[in-house]
Amino acid sequence: MSAPRAAAQGPGAGAAERETVRGRGLELELGSSTQTSHRLLAYSDALLSIIATVMILPVAHTKIHPDQKLGESVQQLLLAKIAVYLMTFLIVTVAWAAHVRLFQVIELIDDVLALLNLACMMIITFLPYTFSLMAAFPDVPFGIFLFSACAVVIGLIQAVIVAYGFYHPHLLNQQIQLSENQNFYKRHILKIILRGPILCFLAAIFSFFFIPLSYVLLGLVIVFPHLTRFLMWCKTKIVAGQRDEEEAHHSLETFTFYLSEPLSKERVEAFSDGVYAIVATLLILDICEDNVPDPREVEEKFHGSLLEALSEYGPNYLAYFGSFVTIGLLWFVHHSLFLYVTKATRLMGLLNVLSLAFIGGLPLAYQLTSEFAERSHNEIEAIQVSCVITFFASIFQFAIWTTALLHERETLHPFARYGGKEHAFMFAKLALYPCVSLGAFFLTCLLSEFSTTIFHLMQIVIPFAFLALRIFVRISLTVIKSVMSLSRRKVVLLEEEEACLSPTETLS
Amino acid sequence: MSAPRAAAQGPGAGAAERETVRGRGLELELGSSTQTSHRLLAYSDALLSIIATVMILPVAHTKIHPDQKLGESVQQLLLAKIAVYLMTFLIVTVAWAAHVRLFQVIELIDDVLALLNLACMMIITFLPYTFSLMAAFPDVPFGIFLFSACAVVIGLIQAVIVAYGFYHPHLLNQQIQLSENQNFYKRHILKIILRGPILCFLAAIFSFFFIPLSYVLLGLVIVFPHLTRFLMWCKTKIVAGQRDEEEAHHSLETFTFYLSEPLSKERVEAFSDGVYAIVATLLILDICEDNVPDPREVEEKFHGSLLEALSEYGPNYLAYFGSFVTIGLLWFVHHSLFLYVTKATRLMGLLNVLSLAFIGGLPLAYQLTSEFAERSHNEIEAIQVSCVITFFASIFQFAIWTTALLHERETLHPFARYGGKEHAFMFAKLALYPCVSLGAFFLTCLLSEFSTTIFHLMQIVIPFAFLALRIFVRISLTVIKSVMSLSRRKVVLLEEEEACLSPTETLS
Repeated sequence: MSAPRAAAQGPGAGAAERETVRGRGLELELGSSTQTSHRLLAYSDALLSIIATVMILPVAHTKIHPDQKLGESVQQLLLAKIAVYLMTFLIVTVAWAAHVRLFQVIELIDDVLALLNLACMMIITFLPYTFSLMAAFPDVPFGIFLFSACAVVIGLIQAVIVAYGFYHPHLLNQQIQLSENQNFYKRHILKIILRGPILCFLAAIFSFFFIPLSYVLLGLVIVFPHLTRFLMWCKTKIVAGQRDEEEAHHSLETFTFYLSEPLSKERVEAFSDGVYAIVATLLILDICEDNVPDPREVEEKFHGSLLEALSEYGPNYLAYFGSFVTIGLLWFVHHSLFLYVTKATRLMGLLNVLSLAFIGGLPLAYQLTSEFAERSHNEIEAIQVSCVITFFASIFQFAIWTTALLHERETLHPFARYGGKEHAFMFAKLALYPCVSLGAFFLTCLLSEFSTTIFHLMQIVIPFAFLALRIFVRISLTVIKSVMSLSRRKVVLLEEEEACLSPTETLS
Repeated sequence: MSAPRAAAQGPGAGAAERETVRGRGLELELGSSTQTSHRLLAYSDALLSIIATVMILPVAHTKIHPDQKLGESVQQLLLAKIAVYLMTFLIVTVAWAAHVRLFQVIELIDDVLALLNLACMMIITFLPYTFSLMAAFPDVPFGIFLFSACAVVIGLIQAVIVAYGFYHPHLLNQQIQLSENQNFYKRHILKIILRGPILCFLAAIFSFFFIPLSYVLLGLVIVFPHLTRFLMWCKTKIVAGQRDEEEAHHSLETFTFYLSEPLSKERVEAFSDGVYAIVATLLILDICEDNVPDPREVEEKFHGSLLEALSEYGPNYLAYFGSFVTIGLLWFVHHSLFLYVTKATRLMGLLNVLSLAFIGGLPLAYQLTSEFAERSHNEIEAIQVSCVITFFASIFQFAIWTTALLHERETLHPFARYGGKEHAFMFAKLALYPCVSLGAFFLTCLLSEFSTTIFHLMQIVIPFAFLALRIFVRISLTVIKSVMSLSRRKVVLLEEEEACLSPTETLS
């Protein structure tokens, strides 16, 4: 019992020690084939973020007939392709979180671990295909079976990685290396890693008898980490009222050492960067494939004038630049926020994943808004879908900040806390996109004739708003301060007048 | 003159000082809105690497008719789409190199610089579209004009970034900040940044009179940095023979401070990781879009048996896993190599870019090998194209190592130098892929009937070869050593026998 307790002394101490471990790793690197895991993790993050996001492409490429109302088409999409996208996104983030935990335990790698990790990545990138099969054949057990088989293989490879790491203890986190109770940690990390695969294994068995149960089990894989955390939180809340408070605190520490330890901030940033980057670049692919006019058509229809032919695509370019600006600025907000985040808790990680899931939906918004050219009946709906996606992506970013403020001492830099130098500015940065997208949504409802103009105006104004934001915040802060000091001064003056008239007062 | 000289004292000293600057940056961060540029650069690297690689998709998606011979189709592809891919790849890497230089000068950022950089990225991601237009309408000046306009805008934004940086000197590299001759550096970095845009501007003007000259000018943009470097190298070689050697050395230092400074190793790694990650994940997109069977077809053709329908796609899965393994292992080799690289010179950077350009071609190889299912006449050609692409990708990696060995004191860790602990092992790792792909190429020429078997066997065997490589190298090294010591011993024995018979000798 003493070992986990010592380890749970606080994540702050752990982080400091981890730095030492990394330094030690560089020394070790000189002594053997052992390497720091930094680049392996960066590459894994890039792979996982791309694979999580790339499944939006089949959704965005679904052809919408101009005669059809968008409402029906969206419903059709929702049934299969969006489900595949969301399932992939969430399951990949679960796999990513397990990967983060795994490489918090194993801090140094060698060639064998690097190759095992690549094998693991290969199976993970295959998961989207199994989801496509499930979506196309929801009643056939084979899709579920294939997915479960992949999940079990991933679990086995990760278990081998753990076994290999504990067999070569110099690869482990220094805390665990020095601890006498290594078996406890081994069992604990194996439990976290094998939880998902075991559920999937059960799902595979049930798929031959009763398919709905399998789907429930698969859904459980996604919510399970958060569910256990929530249940534990509830339990300690109830227990704390009845039992001795200190004891409850102790039991929490013992059982949730890794669960309560915050996610690695660098890896959250790396994963988010990957998602933003791939979403920003997916857009140009569509432009390149769809909007290069056919030479023969240009000759016949536009008498050889390329410029005239291209002017037809005007709205597409506008939609492209608009979407790129949106993604770029949302990345900018994320970047500004995480500059002042010192630690990312699990809840912040979850909110970040939800924000990223909506970011991944932006290519769909682009596809919808670029169909303006066809002058279909869907303009307003398309704009509203874009506004909704942008709103949710940005409001979850705002929620990350709100959550961080709840434990501001542990999670935020002093400047961003209440009363900090950058607090008001950060608030303005994070609130800009939710406000603007919500405003645009309701404006398009009221002034439906000018919806396109409103939307494009919004996209053009926002970058300048960000550039001028600091000045604007400063002015409003000065105004507020001067108003407050003026009112305070009046109070002081009144009090002084009541008491006595001093010579300095008469001078001023 | 004294300032650039002090700066050119050696890249080793510069790197150490840069670390100090970064430490200082973190302190400064606390004092104002200034931030370290680390995450901005990582995001830019991700964007640039994806945009460089993603243009292979239109190439890979070009439909090849099974009746046609691959030879003709490949020629058709070569004419337009591969040209677009290569142009994009090379121009993006030129832009990336300029970006690296720019942010070696400006080491800290603030919000304005972050937004300006995002604007710059937006224009760069639009470049592939201008190439698509050029490829579709080679005789119309508008494509060139659009590309040149983008390049000029990029140049202007980067010039604004430089001006902003020199206006706020606390953002600059500490060396430049302390130097008395800031204007020299300003002019120098502006020259590097505006070189390309000015050539493009000329190309735009000439496009209205004489288009071939414009294309020559555009080609010049790509080769210009390497050309000037090569000419300067030649000049110093010739001059050094005639003039005083020291003086020549001095003039070289003065003019090529930034040119001769090695590229930032972390950014080379980040850019390479991005390319490997996007290539590895592009593959699954094709699988998901093309290889999910139609439910109706399954019902009619396979009597509802999904497994039977999927078995038709067997070769596709095999091709997918084969390609993923190839990319993963090439990344692994790259990762192993750069673990021991301490500095990346410009020539190494160029070789790395060439290697990456072929890596980007691997989805094309996948597309070709996955067409095996159709039993066309193109099997051997497809395998041979795959082998050639793999060969070139891996031989350029090998060339990076060879180049590094030429200046091993500056560029390599002692372990990887001649006689180092890891030298033989690194050689084996880097030589494995070129040898195997070359072997497979010639084997398919000789045994054309078994080409598919040979190719798949190769892909399955290689990962195990990597796992066993260390053991294999150790065994062969021991064998070589024992053989050598045996022969040496024989010589010693003979010598000793000739001289006298010692008592220890008789005992053994």
